[in-house]
Amino acid sequence: MCGPIVFTFSQNSEINLSEIGPYIDYLKEKQGVNSIFVNGTTGESMSLSVAERRDLAEEWCRKAKGKMDQVIVHVGCMSLKDSQELARHAAQIGADGIAVISPSFFKPSTADALRTFLHEVSSVAPNLPFFYYHIPSVTGVNILARDILEDVWELIPSFKGVKFSGSDLMDFGQCVSYCQTHWSVLYGVDEQLLAALVMGADGAVGSTYNYLGCHASELMSAFEKGNIVQARTIQFKMQELLSYAKKLGFDLGVNKQLMNELSGLCLGPPRLPVMQCPMSEALTIAKKYRSLFTEC
Amino acid sequence: MCGPIVFTFSQNSEINLSEIGPYIDYLKEKQGVNSIFVNGTTGESMSLSVAERRDLAEEWCRKAKGKMDQVIVHVGCMSLKDSQELARHAAQIGADGIAVISPSFFKPSTADALRTFLHEVSSVAPNLPFFYYHIPSVTGVNILARDILEDVWELIPSFKGVKFSGSDLMDFGQCVSYCQTHWSVLYGVDEQLLAALVMGADGAVGSTYNYLGCHASELMSAFEKGNIVQARTIQFKMQELLSYAKKLGFDLGVNKQLMNELSGLCLGPPRLPVMQCPMSEALTIAKKYRSLFTEC
Amino acid sequence: MCGPIVFTFSQNSEINLSEIGPYIDYLKEKQGVNSIFVNGTTGESMSLSVAERRDLAEEWCRKAKGKMDQVIVHVGCMSLKDSQELARHAAQIGADGIAVISPSFFKPSTADALRTFLHEVSSVAPNLPFFYYHIPSVTGVNILARDILEDVWELIPSFKGVKFSGSDLMDFGQCVSYCQTHWSVLYGVDEQLLAALVMGADGAVGSTYNYLGCHASELMSAFEKGNIVQARTIQFKMQELLSYAKKLGFDLGVNKQLMNELSGLCLGPPRLPVMQCPMSEALTIAKKYRSLFTEC
Amino acid sequence: MCGPIVFTFSQNSEINLSEIGPYIDYLKEKQGVNSIFVNGTTGESMSLSVAERRDLAEEWCRKAKGKMDQVIVHVGCMSLKDSQELARHAAQIGADGIAVISPSFFKPSTADALRTFLHEVSSVAPNLPFFYYHIPSVTGVNILARDILEDVWELIPSFKGVKFSGSDLMDFGQCVSYCQTHWSVLYGVDEQLLAALVMGADGAVGSTYNYLGCHASELMSAFEKGNIVQARTIQFKMQELLSYAKKLGFDLGVNKQLMNELSGLCLGPPRLPVMQCPMSEALTIAKKYRSLFTEC
Repeated sequence: MCGPIVFTFSQNSEINLSEIGPYIDYLKEKQGVNSIFVNGTTGESMSLSVAERRDLAEEWCRKAKGKMDQVIVHVGCMSLKDSQELARHAAQIGADGIAVISPSFFKPSTADALRTFLHEVSSVAPNLPFFYYHIPSVTGVNILARDILEDVWELIPSFKGVKFSGSDLMDFGQCVSYCQTHWSVLYGVDEQLLAALVMGADGAVGSTYNYLGCHASELMSAFEKGNIVQARTIQFKMQELLSYAKKLGFDLGVNKQLMNELSGLCLGPPRLPVMQCPMSEALTIAKKYRSLFTEC
Repeated sequence: MCGPIVFTFSQNSEINLSEIGPYIDYLKEKQGVNSIFVNGTTGESMSLSVAERRDLAEEWCRKAKGKMDQVIVHVGCMSLKDSQELARHAAQIGADGIAVISPSFFKPSTADALRTFLHEVSSVAPNLPFFYYHIPSVTGVNILARDILEDVWELIPSFKGVKFSGSDLMDFGQCVSYCQTHWSVLYGVDEQLLAALVMGADGAVGSTYNYLGCHASELMSAFEKGNIVQARTIQFKMQELLSYAKKLGFDLGVNKQLMNELSGLCLGPPRLPVMQCPMSEALTIAKKYRSLFTEC
Repeated sequence: MCGPIVFTFSQNSEINLSEIGPYIDYLKEKQGVNSIFVNGTTGESMSLSVAERRDLAEEWCRKAKGKMDQVIVHVGCMSLKDSQELARHAAQIGADGIAVISPSFFKPSTADALRTFLHEVSSVAPNLPFFYYHIPSVTGVNILARDILEDVWELIPSFKGVKFSGSDLMDFGQCVSYCQTHWSVLYGVDEQLLAALVMGADGAVGSTYNYLGCHASELMSAFEKGNIVQARTIQFKMQELLSYAKKLGFDLGVNKQLMNELSGLCLGPPRLPVMQCPMSEALTIAKKYRSLFTEC
Repeated sequence: MCGPIVFTFSQNSEINLSEIGPYIDYLKEKQGVNSIFVNGTTGESMSLSVAERRDLAEEWCRKAKGKMDQVIVHVGCMSLKDSQELARHAAQIGADGIAVISPSFFKPSTADALRTFLHEVSSVAPNLPFFYYHIPSVTGVNILARDILEDVWELIPSFKGVKFSGSDLMDFGQCVSYCQTHWSVLYGVDEQLLAALVMGADGAVGSTYNYLGCHASELMSAFEKGNIVQARTIQFKMQELLSYAKKLGFDLGVNKQLMNELSGLCLGPPRLPVMQCPMSEALTIAKKYRSLFTEC
């Protein structure tokens, strides 16, 4: 288990490729992050066109070369065609893996329907490690992740793991327990990471690691050394920050503004339908952050 | 108030432009339908790529010329960029109007956010009549349609009405009551159309009118003549068919297969993640249909 | 079809039997209401003890004698035992009928389970007309009312109808369509009463008829005479009032305070967990009421 | 941290006090359970009359004397009056504490409303240790437990802790973090107990400990000794059993039948609206249980 993987933000409501280089340097040097997950929910991928997602993925892969261990590109779309195009592209640009979220406008009605959809995406990039990205609270698709895993290697030989962003830790535990040795089960609800670690998570992927990366690393290594009390102390601080932010109306727009403020990067505003948050709100949360955490 | 408007199905899991001509003839001749709504939910637009949606819209407009009174093209997408591209294209191909559903992966958190999104789409095709397409049970966006209408003409001068697919008839009534004279409030829950008519609906748009079009026309004209009992009798038959189908697991895949069976057209299977239904299921429902309705 | 039936409020957070007489006179004289439904949701029955519900039911029946056509007593409880006790009591005090809501803490998982529960209640008062009270948004029990009706006379010979408080008008229409001639299907979502009338509702039961009773009567008789436009005008005014109230946070506590203000009765505050609303809120809504409606 | 606390089942659809003695002996001797929580959800308290709940509570307290360390009596009801009566009674019969669930038919709309309700119950038994019982998935009351705790000692001096049955471990962690030294935060989602332990849970209360009590004790002591792998192994077996049962339709009726089968006690069928499960279903799950767990 290495440190947390970061969900990168997109750049501006119009994409801005020039900020990617500095972003990678910041993550590596300031947050100790060595792997990134691009064009995911934090990256507002669903609000981007296919062409924009290609441009971003390409630039992330190019700039990360030699700096990051892993660049996983999310290629999930509402349209299977679009997902396939992005999967093929990810293979061409040398991504280290791809991840796919369930389509959520038309929802698969069974595990079999979703597994077949995932298979159709993976089949156009059969050599790329494949992750299923499970986030039922956003997609509204209430199919157990464990049911997707059932014999999934037969359909998707490149299957490599699950990015699990849900609070059902029985389903999570069942995924860990069913996991093949070369798979990873990564957890994505940052505010209860410790709970997933004790259930056997192989790693963490999340948006708050953009500014809590080094603290999450500390939490993870405390846990691995058996220092539960220390790990819990860090987790509680993360919870205090996030519950404070939630009371103020935390959403993707606020999160992005907060990141701008804490990192000094210029990631720009979000794209509609996400609204830009008032600067004062991000500043208030940043102040709370600084009262809880020392610099890495 | 003219007859119902049909939500057209897409053609095949790979699009099949050659079936569009016969489809239009069937709707006009067999169902008495004079207006169509293309690339909507029934048309599985969210499962199509932007290029496929352009091709379909173009062919629908071309083939409908001289045959249909109105072709409304749905251009809603998760991505504002994609919606804008499709709106511009709809203007070029001579569509009679466009409609936009709320983005649903990232959900607008206020009426203002959604109205701003709609405005951004409309602004690239300012001369095309614009409809907001309200379908909260699918999008999970629980913003009242009436709140979207508030002063909407200031932001969207081309605003022309609402396609309302919800069961909250207080919100619906408030839309009717607020409506400008040149707007239309169209209802989209076929199984309770009569309730919307009594509340002042200007028309009906729905998927079942693909095969119940002439019966819906009859219902609407009975209502207009004050013959409530007759209108109710037809509505109850529609309800009997649909509740029968729901017990068997009615979804878009079943609906499409049923349409194939009843129309004799070859619209093909749905695209993933919607699964094709077993032929026997469509046949069972078709049998029920035939026991309830005589040919138009 | 006679006028609307009123859901009566309870009296005070401690029950106050002395206000029942004046309450009945007010309903009859000022609102033209001739039937009442006591100890329902508006009456906060679930917040009362069994002894309190007995006392209230008894006083309502006594005072209504010779003044009201019908007193229906709601006897639904979380506990079957309690419901049975109240059903027996209702028979003793000469109620005209009983109604039962689904238990909602433990939820019946099938129509059969709920029908069996209803049967067990009805069987201790076999001669009292029995109504099933359907209100899925409050109980969270998503079983179709139509499925409860299936062959229900075999299990409950005293079955007399459904009090339907839901927005699924396909289910509602199917209930009307299945109804035996001596049954009634009563509608309980006041803000869309007109929609239920066109679908064949036999009557209306609701809390707002406490102060909108005469207006609802007018709506109903306009509809019966085929004057849809007039009926719709009244319905739209009711919607305007209720949507205005909802924006201010309409709940049972507000509704009760509003009734106090509009009727001049002293029904007292609600009982916990419903909180008393600030007087100013009720006054603001009362002002809106007076701007929309003239006195009966 | 001592072993798990058991949620006891009720006895029969008609209560059967004579089985309580053997039930206590079974829990103590076979499951190593030393504390019980009576008249809770597992005990179907909401389906019982107040008189039945008094009789049960009294017998549990009498028979547990000298055998159990703690008997906590759940006194939550829809009606504040009923809860107060049961709280007074619990004090008279020598219960060690009381617990209260949120009313769920009428739902408190704010933390303040719920805290005031809890206060009104506690105030009639001011010397009895008081627990708030948080179970949002059943009550539908989505108020954070942490918000209930805010300054709660001022309103409820006898406050002693939270029985937390939810999957939001940020809220849970915030409760632990805010906790006074003499409070307990007990966890109630058996299938993810380990996650709560790592977050700082003081104990476990749940229904499956009726037959998994000794295994849960083992899990808890492995965790305390820092043997995460062993604790996880036991947790995974519990998950395997419960997910197996869920696929078959696990509910309170099945759980009770399973307990009858595994314990040899005669706890009888559940009360309506919970239906009795087919014996074969309980036997199938019992078989799975025996394949996973050795006798204690």
